[in-house]
Amino acid sequence: MHMMNKMITLRSRPQGWPTNETFEFKETPVKQPEAGQIVVRSLYFSVDPYMRGRMNEGKSYIPPYKLGEAIVGGVVGEVIESRSDKFSPGDKVMGYLGWKLYNVVDIAEVRPIDEKIAPLSAYLGVIGMTGLTAYFGLMDIGKPKAGETVVVSGAAGAVGSIVGQIAKIQGARVVGIAGSDEKTKLLTDKLGFDAAVNYKTSPDLKAAIAQACPDGVDVYFDNVGGDVTDAVMSLLNDYARIPLCGAISSYNKEIGTDLRPSILTQLIKTRSMIKGFVLSDYSDRLEEGAQHLGKWLSEGKLNYEETIIDGFDQIPEAFLQLFKGTNVGKMLVRVTPDEK
Amino acid sequence: MHMMNKMITLRSRPQGWPTNETFEFKETPVKQPEAGQIVVRSLYFSVDPYMRGRMNEGKSYIPPYKLGEAIVGGVVGEVIESRSDKFSPGDKVMGYLGWKLYNVVDIAEVRPIDEKIAPLSAYLGVIGMTGLTAYFGLMDIGKPKAGETVVVSGAAGAVGSIVGQIAKIQGARVVGIAGSDEKTKLLTDKLGFDAAVNYKTSPDLKAAIAQACPDGVDVYFDNVGGDVTDAVMSLLNDYARIPLCGAISSYNKEIGTDLRPSILTQLIKTRSMIKGFVLSDYSDRLEEGAQHLGKWLSEGKLNYEETIIDGFDQIPEAFLQLFKGTNVGKMLVRVTPDEK
Repeated sequence: MHMMNKMITLRSRPQGWPTNETFEFKETPVKQPEAGQIVVRSLYFSVDPYMRGRMNEGKSYIPPYKLGEAIVGGVVGEVIESRSDKFSPGDKVMGYLGWKLYNVVDIAEVRPIDEKIAPLSAYLGVIGMTGLTAYFGLMDIGKPKAGETVVVSGAAGAVGSIVGQIAKIQGARVVGIAGSDEKTKLLTDKLGFDAAVNYKTSPDLKAAIAQACPDGVDVYFDNVGGDVTDAVMSLLNDYARIPLCGAISSYNKEIGTDLRPSILTQLIKTRSMIKGFVLSDYSDRLEEGAQHLGKWLSEGKLNYEETIIDGFDQIPEAFLQLFKGTNVGKMLVRVTPDEK
Repeated sequence: MHMMNKMITLRSRPQGWPTNETFEFKETPVKQPEAGQIVVRSLYFSVDPYMRGRMNEGKSYIPPYKLGEAIVGGVVGEVIESRSDKFSPGDKVMGYLGWKLYNVVDIAEVRPIDEKIAPLSAYLGVIGMTGLTAYFGLMDIGKPKAGETVVVSGAAGAVGSIVGQIAKIQGARVVGIAGSDEKTKLLTDKLGFDAAVNYKTSPDLKAAIAQACPDGVDVYFDNVGGDVTDAVMSLLNDYARIPLCGAISSYNKEIGTDLRPSILTQLIKTRSMIKGFVLSDYSDRLEEGAQHLGKWLSEGKLNYEETIIDGFDQIPEAFLQLFKGTNVGKMLVRVTPDEK
């Protein structure tokens, strides 16, 4: 098989927002698989805010992307050629693979997934990384109790939309913060949130959140940081818990320019706890999370939204749209039939 | 007994730094004690940064001081008249009493203390509120392990100086941050800190702390906030713990003016935890803390410093000096013999 491959590499490290200079499209022949390898044709690419951090240099919980190499992220694909007994053409797999039409990889780099259990795209979302991130951040750090108030920022996003539903399953009152009326309507009408606040149109954001949270805030699952977080911080109850999952409002700011009122005094007053976390902190408990998510999904207690953009070439644009908040739920890029 | 009493009341709530308008000196006759009451002559007054918070209106872990009433804080005194079987004149007691030369109180408001166990002033410091605050914040939130690096801000202060010594007892490497060469010398020469940084004279504070912490920072016991905290935040190791005890650098700033780079991204990168706390969170474990502190003190493992200012009238000035950092160790005001 001699096919041409398309890939997207990191050309330069962005300062602030990624631009046309950030990414480079390349075409190369698809490599021949060696023994123990498979050729995976990409079907869905996951674009996620954490990827912005990997475009920077510097120490973090995951190494930076290397310049000139393909960006790596969650990919669902189909095996089209196998040099292993463990996979056959037609099998569907999931892995952290390159932004490439075809990835030639050792079988250890992927795991099989089953369309009969859930749609392929769900393995990149509700029962994949984003669902598990929601589960562990909320359950292990937030620890919501029945009757408590849980506020979720980025509530219509991939993680936030799951967080709110799990909090409802736990019996909490759930308030979502999102950036459009379409999103807030989704939260209350479809996903069962008790209230939702549009942070872009509320003239007094703190007052709007306070009104939606008459008993204060016990758990704040933070995906966004910035002004939204400042507003919620002022409403914390004693012993509030703040799973700190993301700060998407600051990822494209230059370091040192993201200034805001200190939250420290507020944390002391309320004896609250903020804890940063990433999913890999729970690598030995993934099965527990997956079982709960799968059960709730099968019971109809979990809904999930997806924003799917078609076309491999759209991956960089889809990634940028994450930071503009145009997606509802999990943002995915789907390879179109004519690209296969 | 018809004696005149002196007291200091809160005249007005300060905006920013307390001024002459904040406090009012009053003279009134000492009340006659009723049955079950005692008259306590003040010997030592504790002045503490948290008192600044009580001068503001607004919800916190402890109600605001009331305008026109005596400021309340830790006081050690001597019983000079008793209408209770439980106390006799000459007994020494400790309680949260008014800034008054004489407090006439129900016996439930004080507890007896013993000069033979520790000097009277120690009941306001190392084996009192400040020692216990150091103990629980470090042991319950910081959880230092042998070989880890513990950084303490406000390290020469009442709480910080005890925190560092307890961390040494736990086998940690301990680095103190303080505001004068006299203080840093005290930390390393007398209190056993491994290194100390003078934040006022270090041209590059982050570099200076980094040099003192070649293995990064595992626990940051924060008493000060502000620039010092920003510098330490950039050096956190993964899973760092930050007991948030105080933010003295911001207490006299007007609300909303204390801006700084966001720490949220840093917390995510390192999956670190910040937790605000106050001693009363541990009200059911005070005995445990007191036993450890008493044992370490008797074993010569704990030293403590005091800055004692003489004269009842000096209480407001002593309080202000706290925020200027002129004290070493616990700041106390002692009533002079001619005031008795």
